[in-house]
Amino acid sequence: MEEILEHIEQKHYSKVKKLLSDMLTPDVAELLEKIENDADILIVFRLLPKSLCAEVFSYISPELQETLIRVLTDKEVSYIIEDMYTDDIVELVEEMPANVVEKALKNSTKETRQLINKMLRYSDNTAGSLMTTEFMDLKSEMTVAKALSRIRRKGKDVETINVLYVTTKERILTGVLSIRDLLLADEEDIIEDLMEKNIISVDTSTDQEQMALTFQKYDFLSLPVVDKENRLVGIVTIDDVVDIINEEATEDISIMNAVAPSDKPYLKMNIFQIWLNRVPWLMLLMISATFTGLIITNNEAILSKSAFGIVLTSCIPMLMGTGGNAGGQSSATIIRGIALNEISIKDYFVVVWKEIRVAVLLGLSLAIACFLKLLFIDGLYTMTNGYLVSAVVCLAMFVTVLVAKFVGCTLPLIAKQCKCDPAVMASPFITTILDTLSLLILCGLTTAILPI
Amino acid sequence: MEEILEHIEQKHYSKVKKLLSDMLTPDVAELLEKIENDADILIVFRLLPKSLCAEVFSYISPELQETLIRVLTDKEVSYIIEDMYTDDIVELVEEMPANVVEKALKNSTKETRQLINKMLRYSDNTAGSLMTTEFMDLKSEMTVAKALSRIRRKGKDVETINVLYVTTKERILTGVLSIRDLLLADEEDIIEDLMEKNIISVDTSTDQEQMALTFQKYDFLSLPVVDKENRLVGIVTIDDVVDIINEEATEDISIMNAVAPSDKPYLKMNIFQIWLNRVPWLMLLMISATFTGLIITNNEAILSKSAFGIVLTSCIPMLMGTGGNAGGQSSATIIRGIALNEISIKDYFVVVWKEIRVAVLLGLSLAIACFLKLLFIDGLYTMTNGYLVSAVVCLAMFVTVLVAKFVGCTLPLIAKQCKCDPAVMASPFITTILDTLSLLILCGLTTAILPI
Repeated sequence: MEEILEHIEQKHYSKVKKLLSDMLTPDVAELLEKIENDADILIVFRLLPKSLCAEVFSYISPELQETLIRVLTDKEVSYIIEDMYTDDIVELVEEMPANVVEKALKNSTKETRQLINKMLRYSDNTAGSLMTTEFMDLKSEMTVAKALSRIRRKGKDVETINVLYVTTKERILTGVLSIRDLLLADEEDIIEDLMEKNIISVDTSTDQEQMALTFQKYDFLSLPVVDKENRLVGIVTIDDVVDIINEEATEDISIMNAVAPSDKPYLKMNIFQIWLNRVPWLMLLMISATFTGLIITNNEAILSKSAFGIVLTSCIPMLMGTGGNAGGQSSATIIRGIALNEISIKDYFVVVWKEIRVAVLLGLSLAIACFLKLLFIDGLYTMTNGYLVSAVVCLAMFVTVLVAKFVGCTLPLIAKQCKCDPAVMASPFITTILDTLSLLILCGLTTAILPI
Repeated sequence: MEEILEHIEQKHYSKVKKLLSDMLTPDVAELLEKIENDADILIVFRLLPKSLCAEVFSYISPELQETLIRVLTDKEVSYIIEDMYTDDIVELVEEMPANVVEKALKNSTKETRQLINKMLRYSDNTAGSLMTTEFMDLKSEMTVAKALSRIRRKGKDVETINVLYVTTKERILTGVLSIRDLLLADEEDIIEDLMEKNIISVDTSTDQEQMALTFQKYDFLSLPVVDKENRLVGIVTIDDVVDIINEEATEDISIMNAVAPSDKPYLKMNIFQIWLNRVPWLMLLMISATFTGLIITNNEAILSKSAFGIVLTSCIPMLMGTGGNAGGQSSATIIRGIALNEISIKDYFVVVWKEIRVAVLLGLSLAIACFLKLLFIDGLYTMTNGYLVSAVVCLAMFVTVLVAKFVGCTLPLIAKQCKCDPAVMASPFITTILDTLSLLILCGLTTAILPI
């Protein structure tokens, strides 16, 4: 990589050309991203073997795609577009500003433009918007020999020949077989007898998350996408699904940490976008802290004026922190379980019963540790009523953990049931609720038990 | 699914057998998991077409595998084992208790046992421990026709024929080609001229996370695994990588929420395992709250005895919460960026500079909102020095956000640099640090500015 960048700098283009022809597409894309000068990018791109241009173009970032469309000639652009797979063109059209899209599609064929227009009508993040229309279709009455010759003829233009789809004249999907099934069969065998008729397919409107789960369950390499009449309209391949799985995990992790999710990599976002993604949640969580403020002010008698006020006050962060962490543990576990389809609302009582028992164990462990810490590390054993105060704090700890686990496992499942994103019910949200609840528990128990 | 379960209950086995033969392997596995009675599981398993047994067996949970190994005859078990792919046998051997493994391997061939023993020597979560040894290898001097006939002969026993590997007599990997390259070439073409010689491979000791990133970069369907002498010893396929990607994301989400990660699904863990995964972090975070307690006790003069003590105290949860959330946002973003290979230590200054500017924007937004909230919602405008107290709290808020963002983006990158898991530096850890820092900031600013 360093070597070729140096050659580019020194304008040794014949060497660059030679090195480029030996590189794999993703590496060429990575190289182009690293070149800083637009003129150099154009030169290097034009040094690529023509057959590679579309593939490389599909791999580079939207920013670089835009730059290239602006500087390449109309003819070059249309050559690339015609050579790309539909799903990549659709992605490009969705990301580019209107004038760039115009230039990109100006010289494309009518068929391409009609196809793109049709694809753009599918909602975002559905199978329809992610599929590619270049698949290998066979007819059920074909012999293996005929199927193989069709594959030899058309195989160059489809996204994959690893999985083959059998359709009727009306394009209804009737069977699926793998290239292995075909190659291992006799030349005279009929496709009808080889194909799997129990077909797993998705609808154009199937959500990408659901689609990814289907891929994972069946270990598929590609999945057929059908329209409402069960006509095969496209396929989604595993490489796109890998991206989806990563995207969904990133989205969940963002939301679970009070950040609005974004498609853009962090380093490519400007500070206003980052600010916008972060400020609403911080603001909301800050404002909701009004409750904790109110509780503290209303319990001035206990927390400020009483003999052990400062001791109780000094325990508040510990109690709140433990409550938030305990609740966050449960909610994160449940949220992930829901995302992986391992936990659903029908498991609610199993989950709650499990969490309650775990909470009792955790609450006891923490309460005992806390009791010893208060007495001997913080030195409460020397104080009047020190044992009693410690006991009350520990009891509050125990109850807080119990409540935290209950709230933590309940809210994500409720969110799921209400068709909200369970990830919202993660640590920051749970923490804010637990801050309030743990304070109420502490003040309530103190008032009930301690002599004030 | 309901239908077939009913047939099983009513012992209509001929119907069950017919329905089974039409089902896809993962669905059969799901069905077996749903049957509660061991005797029924055995009956249904024996109704399966013999050619499907090994595949179904690879799909079911370790618990069910164990049950089946115990109840099946030695002969049946050895038939299944011999028919399974190496990676699945290795997984089984790793998960089962010793006596079950003994039964499973008792009647297997010497070659199988030697292979398993060799595979078990690779460390967990490396390419070596995940690979399968059944791949399709070709020789570079073969013609396409000869290669195809080899594939027809051996293709049934390998995990995939979609990607073909070219090796020398000494098993050194020299080339890779896809089944499409082969099918679209002329029968007389020589493999040497068709194969890609720029090979991306991994070592047996390559970590699974690194391997998954390679898959994603190149959109591969399988990846060759070589030993130190560059001999091809196995391949890893994309379906295993999808599992790894999910596993890694689950692990990160667990650690980011103070839960020790586990391979087992939540619903299959007993409460002591869950307790053990959760208690260490909760304990550690609770004990570390000693610092916040100390700070509060040491600032009794400000927080308890002064005229505005209760106001300041009531702001502590809000400040701490906001600090923790702001820091958690940054650390989560950076941790995920590191996991996806988008951010590395060399980006540190770019990241910090970005975070500082975002922090200024966020700090200002929050400080202004907080100022208005304190004055008009909490009614401080009626209090002596109310404006000054509000201003001090808001200043503390601003500084806290700045510090939070700095700490939040710095710690994960330091962890990465020290070869620790960056996910440890997520919200719970950051929150605990920020609890202490925000208190110090509040008390420091109060002492410096307010008249006490």
